[in-house]
Amino acid sequence: MNTAVILTKEEFLQHWLGHRVLTRRTIEKFPEKDLFEFSIGGMRSFAQLVMELISIAEPGLRGIVERSEEGYVHDLGLSTKEALLSRWDADTPKIIELYNRIPEEDFHKEHNLFGEYKFPIYSNLLYFVDNEIHHRAQGFVYLRALGIEPPFFWDR
Amino acid sequence: MNTAVILTKEEFLQHWLGHRVLTRRTIEKFPEKDLFEFSIGGMRSFAQLVMELISIAEPGLRGIVERSEEGYVHDLGLSTKEALLSRWDADTPKIIELYNRIPEEDFHKEHNLFGEYKFPIYSNLLYFVDNEIHHRAQGFVYLRALGIEPPFFWDR
Repeated sequence: MNTAVILTKEEFLQHWLGHRVLTRRTIEKFPEKDLFEFSIGGMRSFAQLVMELISIAEPGLRGIVERSEEGYVHDLGLSTKEALLSRWDADTPKIIELYNRIPEEDFHKEHNLFGEYKFPIYSNLLYFVDNEIHHRAQGFVYLRALGIEPPFFWDR
Repeated sequence: MNTAVILTKEEFLQHWLGHRVLTRRTIEKFPEKDLFEFSIGGMRSFAQLVMELISIAEPGLRGIVERSEEGYVHDLGLSTKEALLSRWDADTPKIIELYNRIPEEDFHKEHNLFGEYKFPIYSNLLYFVDNEIHHRAQGFVYLRALGIEPPFFWDR
């Protein structure tokens, strides 16, 4: 295995935090009612998608740090935009603190995320970000369908 | 700078190639006509979004390898699903070959991507994948709106 560093642990964290800023801006763009009720093609509302992201990020990291295989709970019962944003903001420092507790030597160790997804930790972490980009992009389409300009993709 | 490896160069390539498999499956799911004509909220068709991805991946990598700042051309004039898929498949080995030519020591050097986006090469590469996930997810919403089940997110 070649061991030159293409991406440092801190760079990956900053990459993720940048995406979290953009996702927060996306939540903010939704009118309260549409955040919870609007959907396309039978998909979940953007609030439900965001609750999935919330139920993965901090709990998933906590599982990695504590080597816990506890399952996830996507239905968080957050029922206002303010509650979603507050939870988003409260989780960010926890995410930073937990992430910083993962030793770099552990990134290639396997972790059975939520008791279901057994992959190396680096792969778990890439999934957190991929899944956030994926669902946020769906929120972008909802916003366009509602006639609302989404945030700028580079605005992180 | 701490120098432990959290993600190897080869792991990042495999991560990207996995996403390319999923994006290809997403293109395949579209009926020919809808691929080029369907859109939501004034957005581009999925074919146009895919042409953007095609115009970024191989040309962007070539720019990195050759340190060229030539701009991108998104309008590739591919007008059938077969032409899009053929181009997608033709690009994959080129992407692998070009990527493998980037020395690991260069990932933290700056490159002015397409003459417009001056960032470290690792950041250019993360953007290629992020942007692919982002636009593919919009294709997932189009498919749902068309009553078509998108591919499974894990199917790479």
